[in-house]
Amino acid sequence: MASEPWKSEQWFGSPWNFLPEVVADFSLPAQVKVHDVTLRDGEQQAGIVFRAEEKIKIAEALDAAGVHRIEAGMPAVSPSDKRAVTEIANAGLDAEIYAFSRCMVSDVELALEAGVSGVVTEVPSSHHLIEKAYRWDVSRAIDLSIETTSFAHENGLKVTFFPIDATRAGMVELLDDLETIAKGGHVDAIALVDTFGVVSPHAISFFTKQVKQRLNVPLEAHFHMDFGMGVANTVMAVAAGVEVVQTSVAGIGERAGNTPMEETVLALLMLYGIDTGIKTEKFYDLAQLVMDCANITQPPNRPVIGETLFNVESGIISAWVKNVGDELTETFPFHPGLVGQAPPKIVLGKGSGLDSVAMWMDKLGLTWSATEEVEQILAEVKARSLEKKGLLDEDDFTKIVTAIIPNAAA
Amino acid sequence: MASEPWKSEQWFGSPWNFLPEVVADFSLPAQVKVHDVTLRDGEQQAGIVFRAEEKIKIAEALDAAGVHRIEAGMPAVSPSDKRAVTEIANAGLDAEIYAFSRCMVSDVELALEAGVSGVVTEVPSSHHLIEKAYRWDVSRAIDLSIETTSFAHENGLKVTFFPIDATRAGMVELLDDLETIAKGGHVDAIALVDTFGVVSPHAISFFTKQVKQRLNVPLEAHFHMDFGMGVANTVMAVAAGVEVVQTSVAGIGERAGNTPMEETVLALLMLYGIDTGIKTEKFYDLAQLVMDCANITQPPNRPVIGETLFNVESGIISAWVKNVGDELTETFPFHPGLVGQAPPKIVLGKGSGLDSVAMWMDKLGLTWSATEEVEQILAEVKARSLEKKGLLDEDDFTKIVTAIIPNAAA
Repeated sequence: MASEPWKSEQWFGSPWNFLPEVVADFSLPAQVKVHDVTLRDGEQQAGIVFRAEEKIKIAEALDAAGVHRIEAGMPAVSPSDKRAVTEIANAGLDAEIYAFSRCMVSDVELALEAGVSGVVTEVPSSHHLIEKAYRWDVSRAIDLSIETTSFAHENGLKVTFFPIDATRAGMVELLDDLETIAKGGHVDAIALVDTFGVVSPHAISFFTKQVKQRLNVPLEAHFHMDFGMGVANTVMAVAAGVEVVQTSVAGIGERAGNTPMEETVLALLMLYGIDTGIKTEKFYDLAQLVMDCANITQPPNRPVIGETLFNVESGIISAWVKNVGDELTETFPFHPGLVGQAPPKIVLGKGSGLDSVAMWMDKLGLTWSATEEVEQILAEVKARSLEKKGLLDEDDFTKIVTAIIPNAAA
Repeated sequence: MASEPWKSEQWFGSPWNFLPEVVADFSLPAQVKVHDVTLRDGEQQAGIVFRAEEKIKIAEALDAAGVHRIEAGMPAVSPSDKRAVTEIANAGLDAEIYAFSRCMVSDVELALEAGVSGVVTEVPSSHHLIEKAYRWDVSRAIDLSIETTSFAHENGLKVTFFPIDATRAGMVELLDDLETIAKGGHVDAIALVDTFGVVSPHAISFFTKQVKQRLNVPLEAHFHMDFGMGVANTVMAVAAGVEVVQTSVAGIGERAGNTPMEETVLALLMLYGIDTGIKTEKFYDLAQLVMDCANITQPPNRPVIGETLFNVESGIISAWVKNVGDELTETFPFHPGLVGQAPPKIVLGKGSGLDSVAMWMDKLGLTWSATEEVEQILAEVKARSLEKKGLLDEDDFTKIVTAIIPNAAA
C-alpha cells in the first residue's frame, strides 16, 4: 500500500481511514471481486424490462469495465431470459457468468443448458419467511438446498448459496441451518443476504465474523438499500473478510434497489486502499447505458454518475476552484475523469459570487474596470436566476453585462 | 426500549442490531435531534433555486413533520434569501431557526437582523484548504473563528461551529485548532463536517470519540454522499454520542448531496431503537414538495420515497404477498403508511408468476377453470411486457385473458 493511500493524483480522501486505531481489526481479503446483479436483481425492480439484446449489450459493457462476475439472469423467467443467459455465457467474455436459480433441480438444469459456469441458488432461510411466505416446513427448505446444491456441484457448476432473508433469522438457527446445508450439500461460497436492507453497519461486521468462524467458506455480500446502508455495510463486510461484493449498476433492484457498484468500488479504492481492478472511468457511460435500457433517470446529484456533480454554483466554492488551479482534488474528492465525467464547470445562478462573475467575464472575453460593476452584475445574475428559477446561460449573462457595461465586449 | 425493538406493528428489522455483542460500545445520547439543511446546503446543489415563498412553504412542512431545527438559509446570498430567513424566523414555528454564516461578523449581523436563534458559522479547517483554496494563513481562520463565535454568542445566538473539510485535516492539528477556538471564542456545539464525504464508517466512530474526549461539547453530524456513506456514518456517529444530525430532504445538496433525512430517521428508529419524534408519515409528501420546488425527480426505487417501492412484479415475491395476507412486514421491511406511501400493489410484467396472474384475475372478476389456462396467460403476459418494454395495464391483461378464455368475464 502507498505511504499516503488516502491521496493520489486522482483523489484526496481522509487520512483517518488509515489510522492504526481505525484499521486495527480489519481482516481484508487479498482480492475483492465484483459480482454484478444488474441483469437479475436489478431487472427485478418493478417496471424494468430488459430485452435479450439489451442484456447482452449490458453484459458486454460490464465485461469491458472489468467486472469479475456477471449474474446474467434467471433462465426460468422467460424464453427471452434463457436466450440472454445462454448468449452471454457463450459470448467469450472475460467475466465469469452465473445464473440465478431457485433451489430446484429443474432451475439448475436450465442453468446447465444455458452454459454458465456457476449458479446462485436461493432458498428462504428465516423460519418465519419459510413458514409464512412459502408455507413450507423448515425441513423442506433444507432438503431442497442440499439436493439442489449437490446437483449443481456434481454437474460442474460453482455454487453460491443464497439464504433469503438471512438477516431476520435467529443467528443460532441460521448458523445451524447453513452448517447442515454446507455439510449435506455443496457450497463454494455463501452469500450474506440482507434481503430487506435491515442490518445496521454495527451488526454487519458481527454477522460476517460469525458466519466465517462457523462455516469457513468464502463469503459474498448481497445487501439492499431500504435504509441507505448497502455501500457502508458492504465495505464493512469486506473489512471483516468478505471476498465478493454483489452490486448493481446505479443500485437498480427490488424495492429500494441493490448496493450500487459505483460508490462501493470507489469507496473500496479511496477509503480502504483496495483496488478491485474495475475500470472506474467506464462508470459514467455504463450507467447511461443501463439507465437508457431501464428507462429510468437518476437525479443530477446521484453519487459518482450524477450530471451536475462537477458543476459549481456556490460563490464560495467557485472561489476555491479559482484559487486551487490545477489542484482539483482540493475542491472535489476525486478527478471527474476517474469516473468518466466531464471536467468541472462554474455555472451561474442565485448562489454565485464575485469570482464566478469574473470567471465568466474572462471566459467570454468581457472586460470591466471597476469592482462595483462586477458587484452590480452579480446582483443582476442572482435576480435573473430567481426569476428564471434556474441557471443562467451565456445569452442571459451577456445581456446583463452589456446593460451595465455597454463596451464590455469592445 | 421494547423487548423486541426490531419489530413492531409497523416494521420488521433485524434482531441482530440489538445483540449485546453489537451494541456493547454504544454511547447513545438521550435524544437525537434533526437539523435540516435543505434550505441552505440543499439549495446549494448546482441548479436548484428556491424562491422566498417556496422556502417558507418548505420550512412550514419541515416544522409540521416535527423537524427540530431548520437552517433557513444564508442571508448574505441575496435579498430574497435574507427575506426568507427573516420570515421563517418570525413564522412562529416550533422548530428552532438557524442561519448559516461565514466566520465574519458582518454575516452574523445579517443573521441577527433576520431574527434567528442560532447560527452555523463556517470556516475552513484543514490547513491545506485554508492555504490553497482560501489563500489564508491558518492563524487568520482561527482568529476569525474566535472573533465571530464570540460576537454571535454575546449577541444571544446559539453557535454551532462548522469546520469545513475537517475530515481531511490532520487529527492532531484539527483537535488543537478546535480547542483553541472553543477556549478563545464560544461554541455551543461543534459540527463534525465531512465536506467531501470521504470518511469511512470505521473512521467516523474514532473521529467522534476523539472530538468528544478532547472538547467535551455537544456534537453534530454533517456528512456528504460522495461515496454513499452519509446515512451509515451519521448513525455510527450517533452511536458514538452525536446528538444532532444534519440532513436534507431526499439528500439534495452540494455535489452528491447531503445525508438524506428519510433513511437516517428510519434507520435510527428501526435499526437502533431511537425515536427522534419526527413524523415519518409526512416523508412522502414532504419530499414531493421539495422535489417540485427543486425541479428535480428521484428514481422510482429511491429509498423511502420512491414511487415503486411497494410495487411487486416478481412472481416469487407476489406469491409471498399472497401467502402472508395482512402480515405485510414479512414481505416489506415496513408498512407503506409509516412513510406516507400507498399500499402495496401487484403489477404485471415480464417478471410475473402464476400467482400474479391469479391475483389479477380475481381483482378483475375473471374466472378460469384449468391451470393450463393461467400458464398460457402468464406466457402471454411476459411476451407482451417484453414487447411493450414495461408493465401491463388492465386493458392489456383483459385482451390476453379473453383471447385465451373467451367467457372469462361471464
